[in-house]
Amino acid sequence: MRRWLPILLIVVWTGVQAGEGMWPPAQLPALADEMRSLGLRSDPESLADLTAYPMNAVISLGGCTASFVSADGLVVTNHHCAFGALQYNSTEEKNLLTGGFVAGNRDEEVFAGPGSRVLVTVEVKDVTGTILDKLATDLDGRERYQAIEDRQKALVAACEEDDGYRCRVSAFYGGLEYQLVKQLEIRDVRLVYAPPGGVGKFGGDIDNWMWPRHTGDFSFYRAYVGLDGLPADPDKKNVPYHPAHHLKVSPTGVGEGDFVMVAGYPGRTNRYRLATEVENVIQWSYPTRKVVFDQWLEIIEEETSDRPDAALKYASLVAGLNNAAKNYEGMLEGFAKSDVVERKEKLEEQLQAWIDENPERQERFHTAINNVQALVQEQQGTQERALYYEFMARRSSLLGAAQTLYRLSREQLKPDPQREPGFQERDLIRIRERLTRLDRTFDARVDRAAWTHFLRNYAAIPTGMHVEAMDQWFGIDGNKIDEKSMGQRLDTMYQDTDLADQDQRLAWMDRKPAAFEASDDPFIRLAVRLYDSDMVIEEEDKDLAGRFREARPRFMEALIAYLGSQGKAVYPDANSTLRVTFGTVKGSTPRDGLRYTPFTTLEGVVAKDTEQPPFDTPAGLLAAMRDPAQRRFADPRLGSVPVNFLSTLDSTGGNSGSPTLNARGELVGLLFDGTYESIISDWDFLPRKTRSIHVDIRYVLWVMDQLGGAGHLLDEMGVPMATELRAGAAGR
Amino acid sequence: MRRWLPILLIVVWTGVQAGEGMWPPAQLPALADEMRSLGLRSDPESLADLTAYPMNAVISLGGCTASFVSADGLVVTNHHCAFGALQYNSTEEKNLLTGGFVAGNRDEEVFAGPGSRVLVTVEVKDVTGTILDKLATDLDGRERYQAIEDRQKALVAACEEDDGYRCRVSAFYGGLEYQLVKQLEIRDVRLVYAPPGGVGKFGGDIDNWMWPRHTGDFSFYRAYVGLDGLPADPDKKNVPYHPAHHLKVSPTGVGEGDFVMVAGYPGRTNRYRLATEVENVIQWSYPTRKVVFDQWLEIIEEETSDRPDAALKYASLVAGLNNAAKNYEGMLEGFAKSDVVERKEKLEEQLQAWIDENPERQERFHTAINNVQALVQEQQGTQERALYYEFMARRSSLLGAAQTLYRLSREQLKPDPQREPGFQERDLIRIRERLTRLDRTFDARVDRAAWTHFLRNYAAIPTGMHVEAMDQWFGIDGNKIDEKSMGQRLDTMYQDTDLADQDQRLAWMDRKPAAFEASDDPFIRLAVRLYDSDMVIEEEDKDLAGRFREARPRFMEALIAYLGSQGKAVYPDANSTLRVTFGTVKGSTPRDGLRYTPFTTLEGVVAKDTEQPPFDTPAGLLAAMRDPAQRRFADPRLGSVPVNFLSTLDSTGGNSGSPTLNARGELVGLLFDGTYESIISDWDFLPRKTRSIHVDIRYVLWVMDQLGGAGHLLDEMGVPMATELRAGAAGR
Repeated sequence: MRRWLPILLIVVWTGVQAGEGMWPPAQLPALADEMRSLGLRSDPESLADLTAYPMNAVISLGGCTASFVSADGLVVTNHHCAFGALQYNSTEEKNLLTGGFVAGNRDEEVFAGPGSRVLVTVEVKDVTGTILDKLATDLDGRERYQAIEDRQKALVAACEEDDGYRCRVSAFYGGLEYQLVKQLEIRDVRLVYAPPGGVGKFGGDIDNWMWPRHTGDFSFYRAYVGLDGLPADPDKKNVPYHPAHHLKVSPTGVGEGDFVMVAGYPGRTNRYRLATEVENVIQWSYPTRKVVFDQWLEIIEEETSDRPDAALKYASLVAGLNNAAKNYEGMLEGFAKSDVVERKEKLEEQLQAWIDENPERQERFHTAINNVQALVQEQQGTQERALYYEFMARRSSLLGAAQTLYRLSREQLKPDPQREPGFQERDLIRIRERLTRLDRTFDARVDRAAWTHFLRNYAAIPTGMHVEAMDQWFGIDGNKIDEKSMGQRLDTMYQDTDLADQDQRLAWMDRKPAAFEASDDPFIRLAVRLYDSDMVIEEEDKDLAGRFREARPRFMEALIAYLGSQGKAVYPDANSTLRVTFGTVKGSTPRDGLRYTPFTTLEGVVAKDTEQPPFDTPAGLLAAMRDPAQRRFADPRLGSVPVNFLSTLDSTGGNSGSPTLNARGELVGLLFDGTYESIISDWDFLPRKTRSIHVDIRYVLWVMDQLGGAGHLLDEMGVPMATELRAGAAGR
Repeated sequence: MRRWLPILLIVVWTGVQAGEGMWPPAQLPALADEMRSLGLRSDPESLADLTAYPMNAVISLGGCTASFVSADGLVVTNHHCAFGALQYNSTEEKNLLTGGFVAGNRDEEVFAGPGSRVLVTVEVKDVTGTILDKLATDLDGRERYQAIEDRQKALVAACEEDDGYRCRVSAFYGGLEYQLVKQLEIRDVRLVYAPPGGVGKFGGDIDNWMWPRHTGDFSFYRAYVGLDGLPADPDKKNVPYHPAHHLKVSPTGVGEGDFVMVAGYPGRTNRYRLATEVENVIQWSYPTRKVVFDQWLEIIEEETSDRPDAALKYASLVAGLNNAAKNYEGMLEGFAKSDVVERKEKLEEQLQAWIDENPERQERFHTAINNVQALVQEQQGTQERALYYEFMARRSSLLGAAQTLYRLSREQLKPDPQREPGFQERDLIRIRERLTRLDRTFDARVDRAAWTHFLRNYAAIPTGMHVEAMDQWFGIDGNKIDEKSMGQRLDTMYQDTDLADQDQRLAWMDRKPAAFEASDDPFIRLAVRLYDSDMVIEEEDKDLAGRFREARPRFMEALIAYLGSQGKAVYPDANSTLRVTFGTVKGSTPRDGLRYTPFTTLEGVVAKDTEQPPFDTPAGLLAAMRDPAQRRFADPRLGSVPVNFLSTLDSTGGNSGSPTLNARGELVGLLFDGTYESIISDWDFLPRKTRSIHVDIRYVLWVMDQLGGAGHLLDEMGVPMATELRAGAAGR
């Protein structure tokens, strides 16, 4: 399939709402006028250059964003993005999640844990032609899926011949375009600084998604490389990485109305889904998942309440589940007040009318909407299986490990290029890390209790969606479970397995399928038994995905052309690639009679503090907040040190930790959340209500300065005010 | 006792915070400069004249405030002030609380119910001399109490020789001054108009005390008098009262920053209490009463959930208890964030130091603080008895009736002037009304269930505070209750009593004590048994009150002198007399990062509406709100019709229904509530946070216009815009 029009070049960039849009950097020069009119003072052309300041300093942690803030590879991100590293380095005696962490010098910087990464995007190349050109037109879904995957793998393999880089092909506009993203992959990442939980997680789950907000959501890492300057395995001998560029910290910050932009790696948005897809999310997906997650949380709480060591292992998962559950709830509230489904229905009608009014369009797009519609309906037909079997019923950490290991043994029989993505040579290190990390996130009691619950849920779905091998293993008969025999089976499994032991677990990485098939480890045995039927499901899923990859781009092409004919811009949905969003520092009107003002201050922290988590500011810091003399880094317009601020920027999960830049591209804050009214912005952007929440860089500096021990880091970031003042103080 | 200084004249009115202060009208001329600087455009002198516009149009309903808005005695007040009248005129078939009420003409105007009153203040006279001059200095508490009461009664009796008037002596500054208040008492009050509950009580208990707010809290009464123009008993032959003045309605309203003032009858504030009194309120009174009220609410809910008729009878009490419970909760939250106790302690220290630095002051005031302190401690020693016995354990409606009736029979043995206030000839009509009204607020099942609970609470307090007659009656032994025998006793009481019958109940009003003492009606018998010990408690209470009446004025005198020496004003605490508060239309900052904007609009009602109570706007009105063409009375600055607004005014319970006047004294709204952050303003005024909530007169007019049927009332109020527009519409 050829694209009907060269999209990126022809879309008329007018009528864009300030704030809306997560723009690929390459598109920014086309938005120059608008960016300048909002206050940008640097060159938009320079923003498109990934090898120049500031984009070169913006990095991905895989799931979060971060940025270099010194020539010696110092990295700043959110506290909640460093959660895993804090958990990894915590002990029962010394909980870094509550106490924080300060490395007094580089020797004290500690490994952030297996799987921690710093990814520097060095190149983004349009590979649409390579992926889509000359694809046979009579391919079925499964074949189309495979053809695209094969071409992607070939591109990635060629790209990764360059040592130390990680490559990926990302689909844009639902597969209308493809880009090859090349990232330098630094795998020795160390924890440098984290404030106490009473700062970094101040407000906790209560304030999560809320405004007014007072969270000091920041932490520091450092990227290390081998003596040759190239990425290397974690090793004491490694040296700090020297990025080509690092962000300049602005200790004077921003004020209301000022231009701000955020560069980062937003994960996923769904702005171009059909009305029926949104409706299904409102009526089925979110309410159902909310219930499932709440139950999961309850089980973890119940099973860990008397065991702080186990609780620590699940802290990260609990934070994620809480966040997601609140997210679903907020989405549903937001949808209830929104007319997004009606608006989408109307847009689809208008689009169809526009298509039908012209023979050329009709020929090309007549079935564009209906084709997607049909696939969506097919997909929804198995959504209970997808949630209750594929997602939940196999969700024991040990079963997951067993399935990964057995699959790996099967994939390793094939030549590397033909293996399933995720099981190729390039993936082995990550598999090993995940299997290693399991020790720190697994507790048999919790795992078993949650799994038991999920199995009950699975048993209750229509039996047509059941998997025979699973039913047989646990003696599930129709929708009935014999609780006693399932209990005994589970007892035996957790008792007899060796997979809870790290060495034994890792040893399986090198074994052949026959060894698995001969094993009497109960988790391995179950993994072997489930394999065939899981493969059938996977083939079905791939076939559907292949058909989506034909239908969705055609719909997007029609939509882009239709909106383009009205002079309306269409930016691609977020897909974890580097994007820029720009706008201004601005409050909002969440409800009639109420305004969010754009800044919070130290005084607000004091007012919220209860001396109990999650409102437990360290006593010394609280005293400094109460002391009007301690107002270094204060904003004269506010008469206090700003803590958090709001902006009109367009962000989503994955943007966490993103540097917030001022009109000159200097660091003025870190994006870490959106307001409650913004939750549905993954589906629907509302300019009047959608707001991102940032921690003000002045609060970061103030906290580091007040808590002490971080003078060397302030120096390293070249924060002039702190340096001068400290020098002044020393001179007294 | 002679006042040391003539307070009202010497207090220097400077440094007053705009908004703070509930000023007696006579003091307004002294505040002329400040009122003018805030925007007042009428003459402050005229505001002091109770016989002139606008004060003459401001009336009391006893517990609420209202105002005349037509020459034919049309009265506007809050919907929640007309709650009793709506309840009284409701039937199971036609619930006016939900459906509202419109009298299409004067014949359709219905009696507001026994006890409904319109009170027009015609004179306020300083009688401090008459009350306090030449009081013997060696009186004990009980004697002082009696001497003051006798003089008050004599003044009231003389004042009420003028037929149709009601008089009262009110204490100011804790008894440092006394004023005789004379009010015309109109007792034929009729219900004219009330919007449906989905407007008048929109938001219900959920929104109570809250901002943003969208409540159309207004209703209309009309005052009727005899053909001679004088107050008369309710009678179809009566004619509308013609007030000397009525308020001019301003359909153009006010905007942010505009001057506003409110005239009304605020009930009670405690701004000059000692630190220990506030502390006791925080630690004992409010938390305890909150629990008691919540339990009471639970019992009513339980006992009426399946009986809408019984629920209707308790609707008013439930509203009151809910309001109080939320009030206590808000107070406690507010106190938790407040340093009021510390500030009061500091003030008391400073006052003591100021007293001690000068021999003359020392001689007069040395023990001023300590004397009050000692009495407060004495009072707190019996506070459990006051709550659990005096307030709760006798709180059966039938026992209350029996006690009132028996007390009346005893008081009637004395010459009228010597009878206890509340039981004099002048009080008989109110007693009869209360006893009559009981039918509409009493249900035996609820009464019994609540009383049983209160008796259990009473049994649990220290036995030293028990009343022997009560214990004996119910077989309470120490802290133990024999549930079974108490149950039987209660069964018998409710079964055998005749007091639930209105005629039988009222017949007791004319009987002698001997008849009571010979009666075998169980409630009468219990009332007789409790009489002697209750009299002992009453004597003790009066003795303490008499001593307070010596100590409190001395403290206030010292405080006024001390603050006066710093140029600080001291206004008297609210005491249900006519007061004026002035300030501006203004939002507030309840918390760091959050602002209440001063107006809400129709769009906010639409956003809150759920089609379910309490967010159930009538469908037709909701449609009009959604129709941008229906914007008569809109404010161009808001682009919509304002619904509610905030002001800096100082108000409290009793102010409900108060007319809000603009700079020219025209009606722009009705005060009906305060924000949650203002709840502790009864104890502590916080200029930055304390805000009153008003319904905008333009919303009142818009609703009446849209719902229809009220054209004659809009005409009667001379609302030009509506009249013109209607005339215009008719001409089309």
